[in-house]
Amino acid sequence: MQSREIQLKRRPVGKPVAEDFTCASRDVPPPAEGEVQVRNLWMAVDPAMRGRMDDAKSYVPPFALDAAMEGPAIGEVIASHDPDFAPGDLVFSRLGWREAFNAPASALQKRDKHALPSQAWLCFAGMPGLTAYAGLLRIAQLKAGDVVFVSAASGAVGSIACQIARNMGCPVIGSAGGPDKVAFLREVLKVDAAIDYKAEPSLTKALAREVKAIGASGIDVYFENVGGDHLQAALSLANNFARFAVCGMISQYNVTDAPSVPRNLTMIMTKRIRMEGYIALDHMDLEAEMVEQMTAWSAAGQMASAETIYEGIDKALDAFWGLFSGANIGRTMVKLS
Amino acid sequence: MQSREIQLKRRPVGKPVAEDFTCASRDVPPPAEGEVQVRNLWMAVDPAMRGRMDDAKSYVPPFALDAAMEGPAIGEVIASHDPDFAPGDLVFSRLGWREAFNAPASALQKRDKHALPSQAWLCFAGMPGLTAYAGLLRIAQLKAGDVVFVSAASGAVGSIACQIARNMGCPVIGSAGGPDKVAFLREVLKVDAAIDYKAEPSLTKALAREVKAIGASGIDVYFENVGGDHLQAALSLANNFARFAVCGMISQYNVTDAPSVPRNLTMIMTKRIRMEGYIALDHMDLEAEMVEQMTAWSAAGQMASAETIYEGIDKALDAFWGLFSGANIGRTMVKLS
Repeated sequence: MQSREIQLKRRPVGKPVAEDFTCASRDVPPPAEGEVQVRNLWMAVDPAMRGRMDDAKSYVPPFALDAAMEGPAIGEVIASHDPDFAPGDLVFSRLGWREAFNAPASALQKRDKHALPSQAWLCFAGMPGLTAYAGLLRIAQLKAGDVVFVSAASGAVGSIACQIARNMGCPVIGSAGGPDKVAFLREVLKVDAAIDYKAEPSLTKALAREVKAIGASGIDVYFENVGGDHLQAALSLANNFARFAVCGMISQYNVTDAPSVPRNLTMIMTKRIRMEGYIALDHMDLEAEMVEQMTAWSAAGQMASAETIYEGIDKALDAFWGLFSGANIGRTMVKLS
Repeated sequence: MQSREIQLKRRPVGKPVAEDFTCASRDVPPPAEGEVQVRNLWMAVDPAMRGRMDDAKSYVPPFALDAAMEGPAIGEVIASHDPDFAPGDLVFSRLGWREAFNAPASALQKRDKHALPSQAWLCFAGMPGLTAYAGLLRIAQLKAGDVVFVSAASGAVGSIACQIARNMGCPVIGSAGGPDKVAFLREVLKVDAAIDYKAEPSLTKALAREVKAIGASGIDVYFENVGGDHLQAALSLANNFARFAVCGMISQYNVTDAPSVPRNLTMIMTKRIRMEGYIALDHMDLEAEMVEQMTAWSAAGQMASAETIYEGIDKALDAFWGLFSGANIGRTMVKLS
């Protein structure tokens, strides 16, 4: 079987360009003893992949040069020389950026092929789902009635966080950039209030207005993806004993001069705020519980897919560029077959 | 009985001056039915009293004009018309800034007069003790072996935090301003390392040096009193899953332009740091446990008094000024009789 794959040819300097990559085709032979052959159905791209293109120390190793990159993928078993896998099985792997591959059984995790649409295992039933679930349930200890503010609410994780909070009986205020994303928050995610941060001269005033509009006194939980003036607004509108789950601070990653905000960090003390950073990989013990809950919500029509889909491995780089243009809504995925 | 007391005559604008106060003498008649007459032995002053001189909304009401100010005091019962109190009892009240008073029994709390020196009830067995204890034990969930960094380590609360951490088997790095305070940290509080932040061009480099000097990889717990570059240094040197108990951020209270630090707040996420603000009043349920522990440590010679003492009610304002000159070490107290 032939498989096309996206290889890293050289390490990008600054913004990656097409010439840093190549699309190569290679033969996938019949699987050897202990191996399983998989045809990928879907792969997902995420901004953290940019980090792995550098030769830098992190909690995941860098991508190798002249080899297919890695990334989350969901595929179907074609042939198996391992007793635990049979043709037709649905499997999750980290072996994305390629159409097909042979791998030892240890690189694969079986997924229920009937409970959910295949791509959900890369989205609300996958790492974005676990990230939102662990952040709200374990880090922020969300309970029914908490007023929840979600930044980057139209993103892969934020869009799931909004729906988890809404499903748990919490009023949700989401923030995103531009009218299309705000419409998506209102119509698909069904948040109680949506802020277009690009259209607001003061995010703090906008958040105060929306808190008042939903009849609340402040926010109890902040799902932090952005940092900067979003964090400042959240501190300003926080109720006493608010919990901030820090999933990311994307506005601050490329700030080389002194960040100008938040100016009100002392509110952590006066309002007794708990602010805690986390990484979903530390919370894999919640995965089974999360999948069960997501499956139930999906069956009840309470967990909408939030995804931007590209078709074909030759569009995988376009999908990746789309992450940085700000155009994509929800999880960015590539349909491979 | 005559009692001298310090009254607030007018609300200070900016820095309080002597003319904002007066020392008045008044007669304290025999106590009425249900009242107890107390002669104060000690009172304590703290920086939060400045806030109560303003007519501003807070979690404690402002001081009234033309009346004795309030503050923590420890005194001896002189006469009692309440069955729960007898002459000679040691009592805590919020009726400081005066030599003697009559009060209903409900304004008094009895203290053990044998277990500890009287003034300890205003210091390590009082609110400063509870603040340090709740911050380390409940908020930061301190455990033996944690590397602890304490800012404002020679202050009323910081000096107790250093000793609690040391007594619990934790290496302690303290920061204070000036050679006298650093000597106090080393010789009286017996910290493992002390930083004179006024003498260090980079607090982050100084903390890195001291962490290395004690053979550690970073800090596990930060007891935050200061904010600004102390917080930045603590974030830089934090180990993964470090806990920051935010007791105060005194460097930030009078910053009117944008604070330039911390520049590394994103480390909250990458290092999975938990940062939590608290106010000791929310943790009164820990008081009995704290007193028991402090009494045991004191009896074992493991809890040094850290206090700057002024003598006489007429020196109470000098004690208060001393809080802001930076000269005082430990709890600032006035011996009243």
